[in-house]
Amino acid sequence: MNALAVDLGGSHATCAWVEDQAVIGAVTIPTEGSKGLASILPLLAEALRTLLGKHGTSPSGCAGLAFSFCGLVDHGRGKVVSTNAKYDDAPSLDLRSWCEDSLGVSFQIENDARMALLGESYAGVARGFEDVVMVTLGTGIGAAAMIQGGLLRGKHAQAGCLGGHLPVLFNGRRCTCGAIGCAEAEASAWSLPEVCRNTRGFASSALATENSISFKRLFHHADAGDAVAVAVRERCLAVWGALTVSLIHAYDPEVIVFGGGVMKRASTILPFLQEYVNRYAWTPWGKVQLRAAQLGNDAALLGAIPLLRSA
Amino acid sequence: MNALAVDLGGSHATCAWVEDQAVIGAVTIPTEGSKGLASILPLLAEALRTLLGKHGTSPSGCAGLAFSFCGLVDHGRGKVVSTNAKYDDAPSLDLRSWCEDSLGVSFQIENDARMALLGESYAGVARGFEDVVMVTLGTGIGAAAMIQGGLLRGKHAQAGCLGGHLPVLFNGRRCTCGAIGCAEAEASAWSLPEVCRNTRGFASSALATENSISFKRLFHHADAGDAVAVAVRERCLAVWGALTVSLIHAYDPEVIVFGGGVMKRASTILPFLQEYVNRYAWTPWGKVQLRAAQLGNDAALLGAIPLLRSA
Repeated sequence: MNALAVDLGGSHATCAWVEDQAVIGAVTIPTEGSKGLASILPLLAEALRTLLGKHGTSPSGCAGLAFSFCGLVDHGRGKVVSTNAKYDDAPSLDLRSWCEDSLGVSFQIENDARMALLGESYAGVARGFEDVVMVTLGTGIGAAAMIQGGLLRGKHAQAGCLGGHLPVLFNGRRCTCGAIGCAEAEASAWSLPEVCRNTRGFASSALATENSISFKRLFHHADAGDAVAVAVRERCLAVWGALTVSLIHAYDPEVIVFGGGVMKRASTILPFLQEYVNRYAWTPWGKVQLRAAQLGNDAALLGAIPLLRSA
Repeated sequence: MNALAVDLGGSHATCAWVEDQAVIGAVTIPTEGSKGLASILPLLAEALRTLLGKHGTSPSGCAGLAFSFCGLVDHGRGKVVSTNAKYDDAPSLDLRSWCEDSLGVSFQIENDARMALLGESYAGVARGFEDVVMVTLGTGIGAAAMIQGGLLRGKHAQAGCLGGHLPVLFNGRRCTCGAIGCAEAEASAWSLPEVCRNTRGFASSALATENSISFKRLFHHADAGDAVAVAVRERCLAVWGALTVSLIHAYDPEVIVFGGGVMKRASTILPFLQEYVNRYAWTPWGKVQLRAAQLGNDAALLGAIPLLRSA
């Protein structure tokens, strides 16, 4: 089965031709999420037409276009429902008509975390599993859930994909989503600098010499024995541990896939979290397996075939 | 549509004859959960046969027996999966055969929180809604979720019904379930005495004069201005607020139904929680409605018809 795929992130769009479990050809276009989606649709159409001309023998040889979007998506209606400072014009656009008019193929759209989950369960590390949670630890914390083979979506398209916004500290920090003490507000790349600055002893920590505090620098200084960096690292791990237990208790998965930039330190994070859930999650049936994502930037693109197949 | 129903709690079993949205006849038998289920099955069968003889014209006039159980249930296999110090022999029993042999009717079993949700959405305060979360605030915190008209169950029958065990304090108390900082470990009837004793100033609080600290006594002393009682009440409300946001973010409901003994103070709890979720939950589509359960002890019994109908 063949398909076109778009993965639209905040700073780039990747257009691809996908055949079953492989990305055959791909073009990445730099974008600016703050400038909206309408202005780049012609660029996407051109790139997709080129891919279709090169790889598809005809439009009928293509199962459709699967569009992965960084915001809340109502898959059934084929619409973006809500955005967060990226492509804020998207809810007003009729993307289905744009696709059918400019490419002549059918159109499906889904949230990017759900697309990555579909990709990892179809072609990646969760292959063969039907009960999967995906977590991306990055600037924010993204999530998606599949239960008994079906993506969890919910009435307003929010179910499963707000996993980073399950509160793990009821009296904690205000999150950009508006809630209090979300896992994302306590342990993600955007909240990390504030967490560090509010840790006792910060002023005399090596972290205070950093222009911008990233997880890479945090792990670096923690490895070197900086006490504040160690304390913040342990706190972040505990936050992710509680989040992982929350996701297990909420969605009853067999496997949880962790992706995102922070997972460059999977060697530190995954063994800690596996031990944490083995000890603390309530799963009388056995143990949930935690795995590192395998497909990287291809994950959402490789969700194209299962998305188009299920539609 | 007519059915037999059993609602088995820790200290009693109610057997009933249900016609559509009404409980027509019911018998309550005192039980001891610690003594197991096998020994009371003959009593249940006798009570159910009496109800069937009185109300059912024949076994074919009865859609079956719907059994509500206080533990994890695999509805598909008709088996109890896991118990927690109540009827611990239940996973070893073949309840379907017991039902068919002793009553001659078909058998369905489900977790009690899921049954209460079915009841409230069929005949109670959530009538007409297909996206519902049920929360029972009592000795522990029970939960269940319905998404787009279907009960959320999950691979191992755990999805939705561990809502009281979503951690809301990642560095909090150990819960009886094994996890850390579950909502239940921070604000339920069993954890309340410990929460009070660990609150600064407890020794000089009126709460220290209580033989056993209940939510009734907590609210009483808080109403009277006792500073520790006020602090604990506010803390419990904040915990339930975070839990409610977590359930909204996890399951995307339109309405959340609150039941359980603690809801005797619904007049304090519900307005606080409604205001809390209006401010803090991320629901761009609108506001989730919070409602007090309407059916009380009949809720699980009135889940019988929708359970048997869906089977």
